[in-house]
Formats: sequence, C-alpha cells, structure tokens
Amino acid sequence: MRPNLTPDLDLAARLFATLRERTFDGIGITREAYGPGERIAHEIVRAEAEALGLETRTDPAGNLLMTLAGRDRAAKRIILGSHLDSVPQGGNYDGAAGVLAGLAAVAGMKYAGFTPARDITVLAIRAEEGGAWFPSGLPGSRAALGRLPPEHLKTPRLDSGRPLADHMREEGFDPDAVARGECLLPPNSIQAYVELHIEQGPVLEAQEIPIALVTSLPGSRRIREGRVLGQYNHSGATPRRYRHDAAIALAEFATRLDDEWARLETQGHSLVVTFCILATTEQAGFTKVPGEARFQIDVRGTTEASITAVHDAIDRLIPGIESRRGVRFELTRGPLSPPTPMSAEIRSSLSRAAEELGIDYLTMPSGGGHDAGAFAQNGVPTCMLFVRNQNGSHNPHEAMRMEDFARGCEIITRWAAEAAS
Amino acid sequence: MRPNLTPDLDLAARLFATLRERTFDGIGITREAYGPGERIAHEIVRAEAEALGLETRTDPAGNLLMTLAGRDRAAKRIILGSHLDSVPQGGNYDGAAGVLAGLAAVAGMKYAGFTPARDITVLAIRAEEGGAWFPSGLPGSRAALGRLPPEHLKTPRLDSGRPLADHMREEGFDPDAVARGECLLPPNSIQAYVELHIEQGPVLEAQEIPIALVTSLPGSRRIREGRVLGQYNHSGATPRRYRHDAAIALAEFATRLDDEWARLETQGHSLVVTFCILATTEQAGFTKVPGEARFQIDVRGTTEASITAVHDAIDRLIPGIESRRGVRFELTRGPLSPPTPMSAEIRSSLSRAAEELGIDYLTMPSGGGHDAGAFAQNGVPTCMLFVRNQNGSHNPHEAMRMEDFARGCEIITRWAAEAAS
Repeated sequence: MRPNLTPDLDLAARLFATLRERTFDGIGITREAYGPGERIAHEIVRAEAEALGLETRTDPAGNLLMTLAGRDRAAKRIILGSHLDSVPQGGNYDGAAGVLAGLAAVAGMKYAGFTPARDITVLAIRAEEGGAWFPSGLPGSRAALGRLPPEHLKTPRLDSGRPLADHMREEGFDPDAVARGECLLPPNSIQAYVELHIEQGPVLEAQEIPIALVTSLPGSRRIREGRVLGQYNHSGATPRRYRHDAAIALAEFATRLDDEWARLETQGHSLVVTFCILATTEQAGFTKVPGEARFQIDVRGTTEASITAVHDAIDRLIPGIESRRGVRFELTRGPLSPPTPMSAEIRSSLSRAAEELGIDYLTMPSGGGHDAGAFAQNGVPTCMLFVRNQNGSHNPHEAMRMEDFARGCEIITRWAAEAAS
Repeated sequence: MRPNLTPDLDLAARLFATLRERTFDGIGITREAYGPGERIAHEIVRAEAEALGLETRTDPAGNLLMTLAGRDRAAKRIILGSHLDSVPQGGNYDGAAGVLAGLAAVAGMKYAGFTPARDITVLAIRAEEGGAWFPSGLPGSRAALGRLPPEHLKTPRLDSGRPLADHMREEGFDPDAVARGECLLPPNSIQAYVELHIEQGPVLEAQEIPIALVTSLPGSRRIREGRVLGQYNHSGATPRRYRHDAAIALAEFATRLDDEWARLETQGHSLVVTFCILATTEQAGFTKVPGEARFQIDVRGTTEASITAVHDAIDRLIPGIESRRGVRFELTRGPLSPPTPMSAEIRSSLSRAAEELGIDYLTMPSGGGHDAGAFAQNGVPTCMLFVRNQNGSHNPHEAMRMEDFARGCEIITRWAAEAAS
C-alpha cells in the first residue's frame, strides 16, 4: 500500500522568498561559497529542518545533513541533495531548488506520518559553483564523501585569492579532518543520490515540457588559453599577401570548427563547442592589422569519442590556417574529463513515478556539471531531474515556475518514498 | 645645362640623430602634435634652415616654410614637404624623412650655387598623425593652404581632450587667423607639391626595390562602431539550435568578408579590408555563449567602386548570418572618403629622374593617407615618393636605410631643380 504523500510546496515557497530577501545583492543573488551568502542560506535551511524535527548534522566541510530517520538506521540511506552557493549576481534557483525540493519532500512525509525503512537525508552541499569560487571542482560534495584530494584545500578562491582551507576554517569547519578523509557520507553508506536542479538551458522551455530526467553529465576538454600570433602592420599599407592577421585567422578557425561541430552533430554526436572568448587584444586599434588574438574554447560531450573528435578537428584545421595566413597558434589543453553516466535504474524508477503522476518529461543529457557527478564518480547510484527554467541560469533572471517545481517535487517525493520502503 | 647637384646627406643624418636624441621617450619617438615633441622638432629644423641661409617663415597654424629664394619671387613655388609630428612611441622617420629630404636637397643646391627660377620651399607641416592626435584629418596641411574648415579647430586632441584651437594658441600660433583662412600658401601659389615618405608597408622590402612612385592615396569608408547582439547562455546547457552566439556570428561574418576581399582582388580591385577590432566583450567568460561582440572595419581602396563593392558585400552577408545565427548586427558607417589620384605628370618627371640616376623604382598606390592628400584635393599638382622601410611605421622599429633615403633625396633634388628651372 502506497502512502498518500504530498510535498510541502508552501514551505519551499516560503524558503525561496526568505533566501531571496536575505541574499539579494541589489542586482541578483550572491551566496559566496564559504562566505556570508552561503552561511545565511545554510542558517535558513537548518532552522527549517530543526522546526520540522529532522536530525541535523554538519560534516567537517560544512555540508549540512537534514535527516528523516528511517526504521533501520544502519541501512544505506537515500539522499536528496544540491548546493546552496550561487555565482555572484546569480539567480535564486540554481542549487537551492534541489535542497528545498528535498525539504518539501521529507516535510510531506513527516506530515503524513510516513516513516521510511531507511534514512532519507536532505543534503545542502557547499561550494558547487566552480566557475565563481573554487575552480578545483565540487569540493563540497567530494568532501562530503571523504574523497576530496587534500591538495584541493589549497585552491585559492577566485575573488579573495586565499585558499579553500582558510575559508573553510573561517566558517567554523575543519579542513584538517577533510584532508584526513573524515566524513559522514562514505560512498558505500549511500543507497542512491538524486538531485533536482533547474535546467540551465532552454530545451524544456522550447519543447514545452516541465521536467527532464538526465542521462549523463558531460565530459569536457577545455582550452582555457589559446593565442594566435601574427604581426601588427599598417592596415592601409599592408596588402593582403603580406599580412599575418591574427584576428582573421582566429575568425576562420572558429568558423571552420563551428562547421565541424555541425557536421559531427549530423553524425549523431551529442556535444557543444563554444568560443567563450574570441578577441583581439588591447594593442589592437584602428589602422592596425591585428598581430595577436586570444580565445577560450569549451568543448563538452556525452561521450569521450565526441570530445576527441572535436580536438582531432582542431589539430587538423590549425596547420592549414597557420601556413595560409602566416600566423602561429598556441594553445594549452586541459585534461580530458570523462562523461559521467547517470544510473539507468534510478532514471527508470523516476520515469515510472512521473508516469504514474501524469507528468510529461523529456530524457536528455545535462550540459553542465553538478554535484551529482561527484557521487556518481564515487560509485553511488545517482540520477538528476531538471525543472524547466526560463532565461538560463547564473544570472538574476532565472525564472522557474512554481507549478513546474511542484511537479519535480512530486516525482522525487514518490520516488524517495518508494526507494526508502 | 644641368647643374651637378648632390643632396647633403650628412646634414640629414645629423638631423635624424638630433631628432632621435631629443624626442626619444624611453621606448620610441614621441612628437605630440602642437606639443613639446613637435615643438622641439620644429626648433631643430628651423635652426638648421637658418644656418643654411634659407628664408624661414611660420604661418598662423605653425607650419614652417624654409625657402630657397628663386629668381622670380612672384612665380608659383615648388614645395618639398611632410610633417614633423609622430604617433606616441613611434619611429623617427615617419614624416621627418620628407622634411629632412627637402632640407638635404636645398642644401645641396645652396652649396652648388644653384639659384632656382622659382622659390623652392621645404615645408614642415603640423599635426598629420590623425590617429594619434586630431582625428579631423590633416589640420596642419589644410591650414597651410588656408582651407581648414573653422569647426575643425574645435576637434579635441585625443590625449588631452582639449580643442585644436587651444593647443595651437598655447604653442604661440593664431587659430583665429586660421579660421579666417589666412595663410602663406594659397593653392594657386603652388606649382607642385612633392612629399617623400617612408613606405608604411612591406612591399618595397619584399620586392627588393628601394623607391616607389605613388599613383594615388586611398579612399576609405570605415565602420568604427560595429556590434553583434545575441544572447548570453550557458555554454554547456545550450544546444546548437538554441544559440544566439554573437562571437561565432562575427567570426563567420569576418571570414566571409575576407573571402569577398580575396574575390574582389582577383577581379582586379586594389583594396584592403581589415577587422582592426574583432572581440567578445568584458562580460564574456568561461561557460558562457557570448551574447555580444564588437568590431571595427577599415575599408580602403584606390577607387570608389572598390570601396562600394566591399560595403555591398557587407550588406549582402549580414541578413543571412542574422537569420541563421539568431543575432542582430548594428553598425555605423563613416562617410565615403574618395581616393585621391596623384599627378601623373609629376610622377612621370620623377620616374625620368629616377631612370637617369639609375635608381630602380616601383609604381604603386599608397595605402595610408598623407599631407599630400590635402594639397591634391585643393588642386595643387601633387605627387609622393616612398622610401623602402623595414618593420612598418608608427612603431619604434621603423628602419629606413640611409642608402635608400639617399636615393630618394637624389630623385627629388634632381626633380626639384628641373621643376624650378
């Protein structure tokens, strides 16, 4: 017999409002990782969990576990988690939606008098926004699992320049214990990790579907420092055949690589190739042929083969452009980060829940990385669920509709109750 | 009977050395228009002219006339001129070479006891470097002719922000007289104007020829403010078909316009098309699809038809890119500045002089604008002669060889003596 469980959406709506009010910076939402904004968000969420009678614990890295105790406290637990930090001048939903969805779900269970067979833990994770704070990648969720390599504690925060360990300690946590691998969530203690998150792209909105179940997190291989070196010359007095124009060489490279992407897509590859920066330098100016240009390329894909195909194309394209245009490319490739498949079994359970609830959903890969990646990479059965969101993420205009959020909450509530039965 | 005239190259070498010593800024040469550097250069040149016994006069705009008196003082005069200002951190030769060549030529005439039939005036012009100081275009040479539109006296100097008139007055000159059109060189008082100048491009060096005779100064139509407006999106989460990528749209535009240039060149057009700036903006960053990019295009050609053909191509290319890439282009075109042909008659006399002297030369259009343009546009028979120069111009590495300069001086000396006979 299935309990009639309803997530507490009023609770979630109230917490979204409080979070917005307390962490609005005048333009958007700022919740600095291991800083005031994130601290405030944790305080808000913890107070609510305590009011609900959940068991709250904080691990050595400051991750917050809010647990609805199960009948068998020794059994592997279910986790509903996401992060509470945001990018500077970001939106209110990226991260927080997953934590509040978890709280709404267990609140509903509490009200219904439902006691799961195993613990269900809502996990508020630290420091997920790597592009904004600590580039080492998911230090919060990796520390939660006791798997943060100690050298990552030295990673400087992008704004302050001071290391992760210092910021952790300042917020009252214990980087030494993190370095020793002490944690509350060793991977083999977890039955499943599910993360609800706003979609960061426009696919659901465009396709008019409220929910997506995620098949994989992308792999990537980035070029963060690319330069084209040519020669500055007088733009009037330098005929075409004497030029070493770095800007037009870069433009040709970008255009041709974009054509390659289109070609790979028609062959069935699922990937993105973005020239995030493509620019002449400060020395450029009117009446000069540009002698230097720089670029950054973000390459992501759902398979290593797709990512490698792009980098092979880069290697094929450059020599011809160099010799035709009299320029030289310099680029440094980052490491290949492999794609992370989500659990097909959990996805199947989530899709069954959605179908029973009559909620339309899409199945798609994620284009962004998420805390879920750290869990999956450490052997925890993991899946994600996206909620339709207007205007993208990482900006003040994130615009998830509460009715879509409600559908996501219903799915994870039903799934978690079953998974914990 | 032709006098045996030899330009005084030692004088020129000595003045180049003094100019370098007195206007070196630690990196390159800086001779600010209507500022200390230009003032110093004028003082050096004037002292030399006075020592030579030339008649020196300064016009209301501060242009310096150094005249070898002819037998008929009322006859139209010959001018050998160029400018003495430089760009900041520029080279020693751009401009000064033409003035010193004129002095070397008339010094040679003096020593030989040669008295021309008409005055030969070496003209040191003010404020030619429009990209560095006063963008209105050749205020010195236009004022020398009494043809500077009064509103140009309000043009702010790019570094100080204060108007041309103020800078003129501070240097002891008379902008009110300039505004009234008072001058020492009304166009109909000039028989011919010839300007020796370093080549600002690499053509002579590449072709191993020391001298070029110039057929025309380029026309132009510039786009100084171009923008592509798209939409910032998450670079991982935004599939290809949902993108409005301003950077890749600009890259495609630049690449295609460059192809158009190549095509026009094979059809015989003589022109240059340069994306001097082509760049994502400050808001760009990793994990963002660029939502905005900006560009500047310098279009120059030897005919209006060539320039117009490029702008027609721009108009043809943009709508397709806009609709395929979901972006919008915004651009502001400057006025069409028509090409300025040089006098074929003077060129023919110069080429005869070169041939008689056994000096190899090329005939080519100029890619840059010069004071000669102001003279030609006001009806003065005008021509230019380029001297081979390594490493381009407007930088500290300008590297004219004195042996090439000597050949240029020999040609203009012979030509001027004949033209003034």
